[in-house]
This record gives sequence, C-alpha cells and structure tokens, in this order.
Amino acid sequence: MNPVIETILQHRSIRNFADRPLSDEQIRTIVECAQAASTSSFIQAYSIIGVKNKEVKRKLAELAGNQSYVENNGHFFVFCADLYRHQIIGEMEHMDVSASLESTEKFMVSLIDTALAAQNAVIAAESMGLGVCYIGGLRNHLPEVCELLNIPQRVIPLFGIAVGYPAQAPDKKPRLPFQHIYHEETYRQDRTEFEKQLGQYNEVISSYYQKRTNGKRDDTWTEQMANMLSKPVRMYMKEFVESQGFNLK
Amino acid sequence: MNPVIETILQHRSIRNFADRPLSDEQIRTIVECAQAASTSSFIQAYSIIGVKNKEVKRKLAELAGNQSYVENNGHFFVFCADLYRHQIIGEMEHMDVSASLESTEKFMVSLIDTALAAQNAVIAAESMGLGVCYIGGLRNHLPEVCELLNIPQRVIPLFGIAVGYPAQAPDKKPRLPFQHIYHEETYRQDRTEFEKQLGQYNEVISSYYQKRTNGKRDDTWTEQMANMLSKPVRMYMKEFVESQGFNLK
Repeated sequence: MNPVIETILQHRSIRNFADRPLSDEQIRTIVECAQAASTSSFIQAYSIIGVKNKEVKRKLAELAGNQSYVENNGHFFVFCADLYRHQIIGEMEHMDVSASLESTEKFMVSLIDTALAAQNAVIAAESMGLGVCYIGGLRNHLPEVCELLNIPQRVIPLFGIAVGYPAQAPDKKPRLPFQHIYHEETYRQDRTEFEKQLGQYNEVISSYYQKRTNGKRDDTWTEQMANMLSKPVRMYMKEFVESQGFNLK
Repeated sequence: MNPVIETILQHRSIRNFADRPLSDEQIRTIVECAQAASTSSFIQAYSIIGVKNKEVKRKLAELAGNQSYVENNGHFFVFCADLYRHQIIGEMEHMDVSASLESTEKFMVSLIDTALAAQNAVIAAESMGLGVCYIGGLRNHLPEVCELLNIPQRVIPLFGIAVGYPAQAPDKKPRLPFQHIYHEETYRQDRTEFEKQLGQYNEVISSYYQKRTNGKRDDTWTEQMANMLSKPVRMYMKEFVESQGFNLK
C-alpha cells in the first residue's frame, strides 16, 4: 500500500480540533490541490471562501445547527458551485450564455466540479496531518449563509470543510460491502441478494455502534437511513437554487 | 511536498492508454478508496459499475461522442448517483421515503457523494502509476447508457472514468489564478479586479495553447468558455433526471 492510498483509507471525520490556525502556506497548498482536480470541459465552476473571522465562524456554526467544530477549527472553507464568473464572461465576450448557465446539466456540472476540487483539498489536508469534517449543515440556511458571505447570483455554497489539527482519534466507520457498491458489467437488480447484503451490513453497523457507545446504541444502517429519509429536510432547496439562477431549464 | 500532494498536483487527463487491463486487486483497491470518502449523513448515495466487456465499451464510446479512450483503456468505471437502495430500504423498513428521495436537496447530496468517491478513486489510481480521464460525454445520451447498463429508477450515471497505463505524457493545464478561486472572508464582487484577473489568465492560457499546438491555436479562456456556453447542450437533462425520480420537489 502506497502513502497516498494509506492516507485515503485512513480517513475519518474529525469534529474536535486543537486551537491552532493553519498557516497561509498550508491554506494555499490545500487550495492549489483543489484546483488540480479535473474540471468538466475546463469550466472551473467553483469558488472557495476561507473564513478565519471568529464571529463569522460562530454565525456559520449557528446556521449549520450549532456544530461547535464549525466555530472551533484551524480554518474553515466554504465550497461554492460558481457560474457567476461565466455570467461575467458572457458579458465580456458579448455572448448570451444564460440558457447554458440555467440548465440542469450545468447545475450538475458545477456541483460535480466543486466536489472533485473539495475532495482533493481534503486528501491534501489529511496528508499534512490535519483532520477535516465536511459541513453539509450549511445547507440548512443558505439564504442566510449567502448574505453573511456576500455571495452573488449564480453561486451556491454547497458545504463547508472544517480543517485543523485533530484533538480526537475516532474509529473508522465501516462502509457498505464492496459487492453492494461495485457492479460488474451491468447494474444488478436482484432484490433477494440486495436485501441479504443489506442484512449483513446491518449487523456490522449495529455492532460498530454497540462497541462505540458501550451498548447504548445498536441501530442498523437501514433503520438509520429509513428514519432519516422519512423526514424530508431542506425542502426549500429547489426554490432556492432556482432563485440563484440554477437548475431552471 | 509530501507524496500525496505531489500525486495530486501531478494530475493531468490521460487520453491514450496501453493495451493492458487493470488487475482485480487494482480495481478493488480503487473502489475501496472511493468508498473511504466522506458521505453526507452516512447516506452512501452512489454505485460504481466496472465495464470490461469490449463491445459494451465500444457502445459507450459511441454514446460519449466517439472518444476512443472510452473503448481503449485498462478499465472503465461508470459512477452513478444512487438512491435506488434507499428506495428499497424504505420498503424494507415500511417507511415512506419518497419525498426525501425526490427532493432537490437529495439530488445534490447524491451528486456530491458520487463526486467525492470518484475523486478518491482517481487519486488512488494515479498513485499506482495509472492515468485517468473523466468522461462527462456519457451525459450526451443517458437513456441509452441506462438501457445498456441495466440502470433502474433513482439512479443516474453521472460520468465515466477511463483508467489505464498511460501511453502519453501531456502538459499540465494551468488553472485560474489562486486569487480568482480563493476568497478571503467573503465573496469579492469587484468587477474591475475580476476582469483584470481574467485578462491575465487569458494570456497564460493563450500562450499555453500556442506552445502546445505550434501556434495553430491561441484562444483565450474567456473566449473558449463563452463559445462553449453560448451553445446549450444536454438540455434534455432536467426532464431526464426527473424521469429517474430525482430533483422533483
């Protein structure tokens, strides 16, 4: 196993950081690694906002559902899907680009571009001995996040990444069985096999929680997912992304 | 610079591969690395289809716009946003999860989850000395791709990744200036500064193309983007993702 694969497989989310900021050089390297990711037709459809200001981080933490590690970390990145610069480019080059920018296709492209860049940033940070946690909770209150960070039309903050020196060493969470994620040649739709795999995974997850909580928690993955998904959240999202000029046609 | 950051910064897309398949062990490691990525609320909303069959790869190459490297590579992965298993889980646990699964929020979550996993796969492959190329061209004809790969409702193939032993060593493509991608504290909306940065980047890109094509090509980035975006593509996407049960509410 080479050091890159080792870093990738060692990943776990860190939610408790030492009180020590990242250096400007660390931040720059992380962003440059993000930029090195592939980008669809060279579109580079993302921006990254780095937040150091304690008061702003405190407000973001509040908006994200009071997650303390959004406030307390070494640096906080906000990753945004960004077609604003392409809007300006259309104006600079006197070409009408709005139908493209408003398409569901470009909405997808901007999300994928941003996520590829973010994962590069994460792996780079972890390779430096830093810990990270993705903060999807920012999507609880995107209008407020946009106002706080001066975010224009054609930009959507997708998630934050809290980065810092780890002050905890959590266990690795077991993932779905390889055979359940990976299909050979075509997508398998064998319901019996499917439920059997999920049953086996449920046992793994249940004993993971039991061990981790001294028996206080023993829910299965399918229970956890069904409970979560039976309560729809962030149902304002469709209207919001449309109001930002995305996903309209 | 550590070996991880080196691998990340060395990235370039490879579009010409030696005629040598990946081993099953390589494939497994790449998929396990994909699975190690963060996933929103542990939802694991993706699947990966690995295609070895030459005839299927040939058809995919045709659908992706006749890109030869979709057919000729060491292995071809199709990365899919996947909420199908969560649909089944709802049935297994007797809970109604459809409003969640049909939300724009979960559409975004499944895209982001898939892209994070894919980028881990890419970095892992590159660390093994393999080259990769993302194939967004699969989105040219998604209904046909779905039929070919037996893909059910609540699954969207987002892109392919061609992986293999590189038979070329292309230049690294210069990215947007750091200051243009990275914002400190809040999103900068200074139009003058913005256009100045793009102007500088245009010079970089123009001389990159001149050098690479012996002067045959010298377009700027803003020209390239405006030309591309003035011709909307894949405008069937909104309807298609809705027909797959995504992005409906």
